Amino acid sequence: MKIGETHYRTIWLGEDGWSVEVIDQTLLPHVFEIMRLTTVAAAASAISTMVVRGAPLIGATAAYGMALAAREDASDQALEQAYATLLATRPTAVNLAWALDDMRARLLAVRPDQRLNLAYARAAEVCDDDVATCQAIGRHGSVLIRDAHERKGGADVVNVLTHCNAGWLATVDWGTALAPIYTAHDAGIPVHVWVDETRPRNQGAALTAYELGSHGVPHTVIVDNAGGHLMQHGMVDLCITGTDRTTAHGDVCNKIGTYLKALAAHDNGVPFYVGLPHSTIDWTLGDGVAGIPIEQRDGAEVSHIHGIGEDGQAATVRLVPAGAPVGNYAFDVTPARLVTGLITERGVCPASREGLLGLYPEKAANAA
Amino acid sequence: MKIGETHYRTIWLGEDGWSVEVIDQTLLPHVFEIMRLTTVAAAASAISTMVVRGAPLIGATAAYGMALAAREDASDQALEQAYATLLATRPTAVNLAWALDDMRARLLAVRPDQRLNLAYARAAEVCDDDVATCQAIGRHGSVLIRDAHERKGGADVVNVLTHCNAGWLATVDWGTALAPIYTAHDAGIPVHVWVDETRPRNQGAALTAYELGSHGVPHTVIVDNAGGHLMQHGMVDLCITGTDRTTAHGDVCNKIGTYLKALAAHDNGVPFYVGLPHSTIDWTLGDGVAGIPIEQRDGAEVSHIHGIGEDGQAATVRLVPAGAPVGNYAFDVTPARLVTGLITERGVCPASREGLLGLYPEKAANAA
Repeated sequence: MKIGETHYRTIWLGEDGWSVEVIDQTLLPHVFEIMRLTTVAAAASAISTMVVRGAPLIGATAAYGMALAAREDASDQALEQAYATLLATRPTAVNLAWALDDMRARLLAVRPDQRLNLAYARAAEVCDDDVATCQAIGRHGSVLIRDAHERKGGADVVNVLTHCNAGWLATVDWGTALAPIYTAHDAGIPVHVWVDETRPRNQGAALTAYELGSHGVPHTVIVDNAGGHLMQHGMVDLCITGTDRTTAHGDVCNKIGTYLKALAAHDNGVPFYVGLPHSTIDWTLGDGVAGIPIEQRDGAEVSHIHGIGEDGQAATVRLVPAGAPVGNYAFDVTPARLVTGLITERGVCPASREGLLGLYPEKAANAA
Repeated sequence: MKIGETHYRTIWLGEDGWSVEVIDQTLLPHVFEIMRLTTVAAAASAISTMVVRGAPLIGATAAYGMALAAREDASDQALEQAYATLLATRPTAVNLAWALDDMRARLLAVRPDQRLNLAYARAAEVCDDDVATCQAIGRHGSVLIRDAHERKGGADVVNVLTHCNAGWLATVDWGTALAPIYTAHDAGIPVHVWVDETRPRNQGAALTAYELGSHGVPHTVIVDNAGGHLMQHGMVDLCITGTDRTTAHGDVCNKIGTYLKALAAHDNGVPFYVGLPHSTIDWTLGDGVAGIPIEQRDGAEVSHIHGIGEDGQAATVRLVPAGAPVGNYAFDVTPARLVTGLITERGVCPASREGLLGLYPEKAANAA
């Protein structure tokens, strides 16, 4: 999507034809800076430090990480090592594992001297596939927004609440949760987005607000606490979030706090949708609450907040008393019973085993 | 309660016998500073800028504000003006109005030359009554914690989740939601408190963590998004929050986000209690969601965060892109159906008209 007058993807090849360039998302929305990755270690670090984040972009970065690894050493041993390094960066994201499994299988299946070209070609394909996937999610999901607009008589703006950032910055382009919004907006449907700030890392306040603003989509940043009140008062027509991992039964593991919004939506009759590419579906898992380990991250993400100071320089402030104990749970699981529907690249389905298998019948033999 | 080795209340008379001293809560937890109030305008400003906050402390400050007003000019007209000035500071807090109505009625009932002494005496009584009220809430509520401890077999710690700051800093002493915790802790029951940071103003991260830490109560600061996950995984035994305004039917208007925690508690079978003095009950209101106007505050509270910088100086950082639209709803309403019980100074009752009238039968004629 656009930043200023330039169209960007979130990851692309440098002018040298082999280095990998990404937008350093830790600096957004205050500074736009491109980071050049030249080693698998740099790719792994970019994922673990959240220079790149969002399940699809993590997968794409991991794919290019394998290409960078093949450039350094295309032996079986080196690629296995690269696979392990990249896999360890973020335990929750299922399409990190999906992209890495795909790359490893394809690369190990050919002779070492064929691996480098194959790796770059396949990584590019992973990116292009993600763009096509997100466009399809946008197409299917925008129908829900159009329907909401028609239910409101075609005059009022449609208010969509989203949590975290599942926009184009979380993918290669378009986004998952935000693709329907961009598609509807571009089609002339009046959309306004309530943007949860998404503590502790503020991906909503920083990234979602940034990309919606850059694209010209009306939006309002709110604290994570506010969504329930808005839904009680009819100020939200539908919710759309992304997901880091979706179980075969339709449970949704997404940024911490998603579950609370789904509860509020359910309590107020507000439809709650989740946009996802098939790569986030973990067909081996049924019960997400019991089965998905929740990443605990550095407590400093809670105790300290990064932003831009009054002098225009990046700055960090501490919120809590010195030495106060802090807990930092990164994700939660929204049970399928609270999810109105899943917006996939193949269409919208109920959040259930039957719903998912209706769109992905080829998974029936393997699904939990 | 204690800060270091000194016992403090949140409001007291200065050594001169007439000025009013308060802890400047906007500087906590990083700086402990006492502010001296010498005029009704200063008292009003202390309330509106949240130097003092929390429904009971707002009421106490308003009462002393009327005493300061009587010192300047004890005429009917001047006191009416002071009443109006103080009442306008915070539209949601019902016991602001309660304290002011009480003071005005008592002062106007006597001759102007008798008003000054009466005002100071009555303001002191308002404070002492609040302390007694909070101690009683602590006594009744600590039974719930003791019961939870016994249900866990008497060995495990009892995990209590709280939102915002309804501790002694929000009252004159002891607190409302936290009084049961202090009482249980002092009685030797092992309690651990999950402290919601409470965006946008971070009263949990700043004040609740500060006062629990100062008193030696084990606690962990979490983001507001985390409570649902904790409750899904059995890591919360009960929730206790405060309330700014409670309807005659048991609906609870409290800091934005309380409703989301009540939904999560309900979804996971976790008891959800609200601690309150009778002064927060608005007997004229039944349906809180429909009937309580929700204060909208300055968007800068959302877009900017105050804390302490790496250099140890107070600092403010901006989270959102420059110029991003921001909404700031300060409270929400938790319907009575989600509240397990109300902990009042007269005991614990169901969150219902019948429950409240069981404890306050004298209100039966007037209650909505």
